[in-house]
Amino acid sequence: MPIPAPALDALSALLGARLSTSGADRDLHAQSETFHRAPPPDAVAWPVSTQEASRIAAICHAHRVPMIGWGTGTSLEGQALAPQGGLVIDLTKMDRVLEIRAEDMQVSVQPGCTREALNLELRATGLFFPVDPGANASLGGMAATRASGTTAVRYGTMRDNVLALEVVLADGRVIRTGTRAAKSSAGYDLTALFVGSEGTLGIITELTLRLHGQPEEVAAAVCGFSTLEQAVECVTATIQSGIPMARIEFIDADVVRAFNRASGTQMHEGPHLMVEFHGSSASVKGDAEAFGALAAEFGGTGFDWATTPEARAALWKMRHNAYRSCLALRPGATAVVTDVCVPMSHLPAAVAAAAEDIRAEGLLGPIVGHVGDGNFHAQILVTPGDEAELAAAKRVALRMAERAIAVGGTITGEHGVGIGKRPLMPAQHGAAIGVMAAIKQALDPEGVLNPGKLVPEAD
Amino acid sequence: MPIPAPALDALSALLGARLSTSGADRDLHAQSETFHRAPPPDAVAWPVSTQEASRIAAICHAHRVPMIGWGTGTSLEGQALAPQGGLVIDLTKMDRVLEIRAEDMQVSVQPGCTREALNLELRATGLFFPVDPGANASLGGMAATRASGTTAVRYGTMRDNVLALEVVLADGRVIRTGTRAAKSSAGYDLTALFVGSEGTLGIITELTLRLHGQPEEVAAAVCGFSTLEQAVECVTATIQSGIPMARIEFIDADVVRAFNRASGTQMHEGPHLMVEFHGSSASVKGDAEAFGALAAEFGGTGFDWATTPEARAALWKMRHNAYRSCLALRPGATAVVTDVCVPMSHLPAAVAAAAEDIRAEGLLGPIVGHVGDGNFHAQILVTPGDEAELAAAKRVALRMAERAIAVGGTITGEHGVGIGKRPLMPAQHGAAIGVMAAIKQALDPEGVLNPGKLVPEAD
Repeated sequence: MPIPAPALDALSALLGARLSTSGADRDLHAQSETFHRAPPPDAVAWPVSTQEASRIAAICHAHRVPMIGWGTGTSLEGQALAPQGGLVIDLTKMDRVLEIRAEDMQVSVQPGCTREALNLELRATGLFFPVDPGANASLGGMAATRASGTTAVRYGTMRDNVLALEVVLADGRVIRTGTRAAKSSAGYDLTALFVGSEGTLGIITELTLRLHGQPEEVAAAVCGFSTLEQAVECVTATIQSGIPMARIEFIDADVVRAFNRASGTQMHEGPHLMVEFHGSSASVKGDAEAFGALAAEFGGTGFDWATTPEARAALWKMRHNAYRSCLALRPGATAVVTDVCVPMSHLPAAVAAAAEDIRAEGLLGPIVGHVGDGNFHAQILVTPGDEAELAAAKRVALRMAERAIAVGGTITGEHGVGIGKRPLMPAQHGAAIGVMAAIKQALDPEGVLNPGKLVPEAD
Repeated sequence: MPIPAPALDALSALLGARLSTSGADRDLHAQSETFHRAPPPDAVAWPVSTQEASRIAAICHAHRVPMIGWGTGTSLEGQALAPQGGLVIDLTKMDRVLEIRAEDMQVSVQPGCTREALNLELRATGLFFPVDPGANASLGGMAATRASGTTAVRYGTMRDNVLALEVVLADGRVIRTGTRAAKSSAGYDLTALFVGSEGTLGIITELTLRLHGQPEEVAAAVCGFSTLEQAVECVTATIQSGIPMARIEFIDADVVRAFNRASGTQMHEGPHLMVEFHGSSASVKGDAEAFGALAAEFGGTGFDWATTPEARAALWKMRHNAYRSCLALRPGATAVVTDVCVPMSHLPAAVAAAAEDIRAEGLLGPIVGHVGDGNFHAQILVTPGDEAELAAAKRVALRMAERAIAVGGTITGEHGVGIGKRPLMPAQHGAAIGVMAAIKQALDPEGVLNPGKLVPEAD
């Protein structure tokens, strides 16, 4: 259903040139990094203030126009697509760092500010924002999808690092959740409710984030293993031993092959762990030695230490580019990329089962993982148009999710639900889906906020 | 309104002797540790299983009978009182540790299990549950009030340490929230929604909790300061310096006087900090030295180290008994006990203003605080029946809350809302109160779950 003319007129009067219905702008906001596809939205709006975002919502609400929040478009389950048409609200013009309160280790930002832009502004303060999903995502988008990434094992996810929000509700009302205090028992935790709600309950227009002290010393290394099982069992043992890892990433042989091709490295094409330690000189040395001893027990060899900041940056850039490097293993391919998260004790079996399943289906599906918290990803390559291959890849993703549920884990550790994982929500949550639906109905009775995402249709 | 006879009959048929309408049982469940008072509930039920709790809820829901969850009755804002009558659901017979999963550092417990009982069971595992509000509260109650306490500065609050819940909803439906994975992006964070909801959205019947490794080394000490300001500024400097304190508690001169009387100690009757360090031998030594150097800068003197486990236990027992020891400063007194939490940079001024306000009102109001996260408490003594004194104490509590809001803090860091802080909720949350009310309405349309608590009446 196209946007009614009176709504378009009202939006145009409010936004002028910051409303577009051009094909180019609409197509730009129909992109997805993965195989998820949907028609372009009917229009795109670029608000510059909370007040404008609020008025946009009021107009859309009055005319029943779907609203889809947009940050950098890097979500992986089709969260920012517009399957029912409507208006994409692009928040990239609301990208300011509003206030750094270094003494409270907090910052207030607008939602379009990216994590890299924030950390650039923080450089001189001795503080940093640690959550790192790989992509240079917007902080509003990261909150909306409850993102985490390589450093969550040490610093937590967006759930742990968002203190307060400003949110525009479905009808344009503006609320503030949370406080600037480190903790609060003053009522329902609305901050936690909006974090991870993927724009289905409101549009985030401001965030207050926790900051952390830049570590005095950082050390990073890569270490090879003979088998996937040994590498993953080393991770489980490391976490159980209490070594405070800042990062501990698993990459399989296919990923290493992709790295070697893309980055010109000459790593042995077997499973590896990429690790990082943060702390004082003494603690980093001690932690690294303790990890080295454990890794040796599991057959870890060929430690390669990145001793300079430049070498570390190159190392993690390579890791962050894993998705694109793996896509390049088969030129022209797209990917079914899926993530699950399981209790640590189930991690080795879960990774091994996924790898075996990919092999049995005859697919190419590199596996990477923020395995320090039991989270791993498969990126299953599919040739566009090859429906049989796509179906096989989806079968693998489904079985990964089913196995995760069976051991008490989750169908997604950090990618979120969007379109892709929505059919699995009942299997994950059982009767609790009814509570999610009741909350959605209470806060968005007209169903205008990111319709078709996260909460399954009622039976 | 008394419980209708058909409801009582149905409850009696279900529970037999585990339903009581005796005056003694009802009075026992009308106790409050503070000045909050309400008539006793109409009846008390002791379910032994989730299934029974579910059936109780279904009966109460059908007959519009208020349901009030009860753990150990140690809440401080009247959360477990029955101002509108109804049925208290006493969960003390559901007190089992269900499953310890040491390799995943998790445990599943029933809600009536207390934190001390849990830690006793965990002793041989090398793990412990760190959240410590002082009272030996039930874990269900601690989750329901989003409790924290002395160790939150290091290990977080119940928000951070509850992974998953089983909850009986208003109408008796049973849901499970969260998973056993360390993180999840699979939909709305219902676990966080129920944690801190004070029994107004459901009755918690099972909890999955995060466990932590027992520290290799523990060191604790008390250190005196000349003025309140110096002590609190030392805390702010300590936290900003990044020393990983396990505990950092402020006690003022009145509290020390109460300790000396109650415990026979001979501490100098001035402000003190009580601190604890957890870690390896080396890190504890380093952290303690770094803190000692900082404390010296702020005039800290007379470090008294508790070097044995017994001495440490005595130290923290004294701290945990602070509430009762302070009450004993005036025999027969009850107390208006209130807590607020502010951003660290505002802590010294906030504590000083509260102390000055108490003095100006001519009240006796010892101040203690889990000041490492900006949280402090005043326990203002009032003589029962002295309405003028009660009114003055409430004025002080109100101004503490107002000043906390003014600097971006919260009206309660850990005691919760209950009856006492409910009138302050609109000032704290503004328009967000409407969202809380909508959620309450969606999940408890009949208003049977702990009515009169947390969410203010609609205008």
